[in-house]
Amino acid sequence: MNNQPIGVFDSGIGGLTVAREITRTLPNESIIYLGDTARIPYGTRSKEVVTRFAKELMDYLLKLDVKALVVACNTISATCLEELQAISPVPVLGVIKPAAKVAVETTQSKVVGVIATRGTVGSKAYDNEINKINGDIKVISQACTLFVPIAEEGLGDDEVARVMADRYLSVFTGTGVDTLILGCTHFPLLRDTIQQSIGKNIALVDSAQPTAEELKEILGEKDLLSNSTESHNKFLVTDAPQRVFEIASVFFGKEVFPQIEKVNLD
Amino acid sequence: MNNQPIGVFDSGIGGLTVAREITRTLPNESIIYLGDTARIPYGTRSKEVVTRFAKELMDYLLKLDVKALVVACNTISATCLEELQAISPVPVLGVIKPAAKVAVETTQSKVVGVIATRGTVGSKAYDNEINKINGDIKVISQACTLFVPIAEEGLGDDEVARVMADRYLSVFTGTGVDTLILGCTHFPLLRDTIQQSIGKNIALVDSAQPTAEELKEILGEKDLLSNSTESHNKFLVTDAPQRVFEIASVFFGKEVFPQIEKVNLD
Repeated sequence: MNNQPIGVFDSGIGGLTVAREITRTLPNESIIYLGDTARIPYGTRSKEVVTRFAKELMDYLLKLDVKALVVACNTISATCLEELQAISPVPVLGVIKPAAKVAVETTQSKVVGVIATRGTVGSKAYDNEINKINGDIKVISQACTLFVPIAEEGLGDDEVARVMADRYLSVFTGTGVDTLILGCTHFPLLRDTIQQSIGKNIALVDSAQPTAEELKEILGEKDLLSNSTESHNKFLVTDAPQRVFEIASVFFGKEVFPQIEKVNLD
Repeated sequence: MNNQPIGVFDSGIGGLTVAREITRTLPNESIIYLGDTARIPYGTRSKEVVTRFAKELMDYLLKLDVKALVVACNTISATCLEELQAISPVPVLGVIKPAAKVAVETTQSKVVGVIATRGTVGSKAYDNEINKINGDIKVISQACTLFVPIAEEGLGDDEVARVMADRYLSVFTGTGVDTLILGCTHFPLLRDTIQQSIGKNIALVDSAQPTAEELKEILGEKDLLSNSTESHNKFLVTDAPQRVFEIASVFFGKEVFPQIEKVNLD
């Protein structure tokens, strides 16, 4: 047993959707969430820069003695998960593989759609994970860049979201896709709009719950589960304008991470 | 006379609209443009973080022996221009005051609208500059956050731009506004959409040309104009994914800054 905290990090606060699932699945665990709000978004940046920023986030959390790390960001997971795993002394878990597994289990047509940031789509990380499990599945990907700022503006159910969803998702028409991965932590905030645009027969899969389940499994295997009866969560960001508080409550409510603390990475 | 280059910096590449006007107004001058594409956007960040990032950009350009600096970014100009001027050994010019002057000269109704990022609106920098010139002018401001990613996606003339323009600009209906400042270097890319939404009788003012004129005046006063017959422009960015090249051509064409070079600030 091990009562050290779990480090969860993200380019911003979208990863709170993953952190929330972890607190539900593993209520005895303490979480330190670190969001790089000073440099968000990562999804439009190069591999080199995303990797450098991600290593800085990881180093910061390792200094706080976390027992495991969750990369609650599709772009980082897609770009440099293996580099992070290679240099981390503790287990590092990404969000791509857990969602890919669920999508493979879900699809009947063997055609899976992926919507994500430009960085994640360009990495082909979902294609690779899905085809490692089943090489016969066809993957069709679409970058949905504007979904990120639309989600952050709280406009996930708005006309602007519907206009862009119809535009972006038309690429899946007639392809036989029956399962769509929401490959960005922001996209669950547009879930209803996406479902309505693509049709109610398409299964939507996101990373939050599958990642929390995989974390539980890994901690169990390595005997790292906590036996504490209470959890102490921390919510750290690299920039905290008033707006971060507003967006955080869009993503999370205020029940689990009551306070937001600003930190410097260097 | 002084043939050293002029440093122009911005959170990203929107400031190219200003750089282009400088090359037109001052064809003998050489420009070094520096865009912080690794950390764009600035418009949603806190004053503290914007100031820190801006000082790093300024220091980088000062080491390259620039004779003057142009802050081709409304957010930086609105947030920390005076701090930068206080520590710079060369003249530093922002984009707020030049546009404010033109707006004051233009308005008949004495009601001026400003659209900008959340950071610029929150700073009240346009209000202050306008009321320094004429305290009787009423200023009405509106943050148009989504215009930035819409411009960068090349969707300035698209339905999504029209939906958001109608939403954002409805605040000016019935206010008597006759002059609207495009208070973000990205917004000229939505000029037609904005004009159509707000009505053709409203004058649109942006910073590019007024800033180039003010720079010419300042360099003349300080005897810093170049007498070179040719200019050597450099285009530096802190991150250069393929996408930056595509967006740069949306903003600028390729005629004046043929090559993009990636640099590290530290």
